[in-house]
Amino acid sequence: MSPLAARDPNETDEDREAAQAGQDRPILTAIDHVGIAVRDLPAALDTYRDAFGAVVEFREELPDDGVEVALLKVGESFVQLLTPVDDDSPVAAFLDERGEGVHHVAYRVDDVAAALAQLTEAGLEPIDEEPRAGSRDTSIAFVHPGGTQGTLILLVEG
Amino acid sequence: MSPLAARDPNETDEDREAAQAGQDRPILTAIDHVGIAVRDLPAALDTYRDAFGAVVEFREELPDDGVEVALLKVGESFVQLLTPVDDDSPVAAFLDERGEGVHHVAYRVDDVAAALAQLTEAGLEPIDEEPRAGSRDTSIAFVHPGGTQGTLILLVEG
Repeated sequence: MSPLAARDPNETDEDREAAQAGQDRPILTAIDHVGIAVRDLPAALDTYRDAFGAVVEFREELPDDGVEVALLKVGESFVQLLTPVDDDSPVAAFLDERGEGVHHVAYRVDDVAAALAQLTEAGLEPIDEEPRAGSRDTSIAFVHPGGTQGTLILLVEG
Repeated sequence: MSPLAARDPNETDEDREAAQAGQDRPILTAIDHVGIAVRDLPAALDTYRDAFGAVVEFREELPDDGVEVALLKVGESFVQLLTPVDDDSPVAAFLDERGEGVHHVAYRVDDVAAALAQLTEAGLEPIDEEPRAGSRDTSIAFVHPGGTQGTLILLVEG
């Protein structure tokens, strides 16, 4: 049977492009940032400044996630220090359960929606079913750590 | 009192350069890799290939650390998947205590020895007092997470 004959007749061009993307080329174009949950943001900023000369590039409160973040530029990537601004935020729960440390790894992609389609097809579970607004005018989506060997992954476009 | 008069008479030019480096410029030049501890390396490689099209760039056993590692290229950085090759390795203990997930964050620096001097001066605690050989012919040193808000940091030169 030819590959053409094996095609699902309901499959669209977009479906085929999404399904082929992973086989053709890597879709993660850079490590955008490593998100590190901390209890005391000023103390953490002091550590990174004193020990590594790291400078704050960007600071923002993200009400949707219940956190305040500070981004330290490291080459083409960032270290994102994040701390909860209310006791109900998921990051507050993370700190209670796991303590301070790496909370998520964020990868740059060209198209968050296409990446979500591809990784869902591969059996991973999006936390955000659709892309939403992130910091620095980006479009983002979290992916559940249950399908990725325990790593909470964030996809970042823009 | 002038700055000159306040100098420690035993301080060398190298000491002064190391002490000033952090105040003058960031010493972390890139995220070299994010190290992710996994129990089943082939299964993890399948996940990253199927979901993200990620390709193995480099694979190596590191007997000093009791691990096998696979490096997946992401822009100028890597995802390092690591798994213990013996039950006594620190990574085996990490998996027992914390489960799968991010094990360390590795930053590129121009000079590991100078970076160790600077971060020790800032109150952080090196695990490796001196640089040692890492994968890919690099020179590396781990820094204790106790001084860095819970993040095990690896410095990578070369």
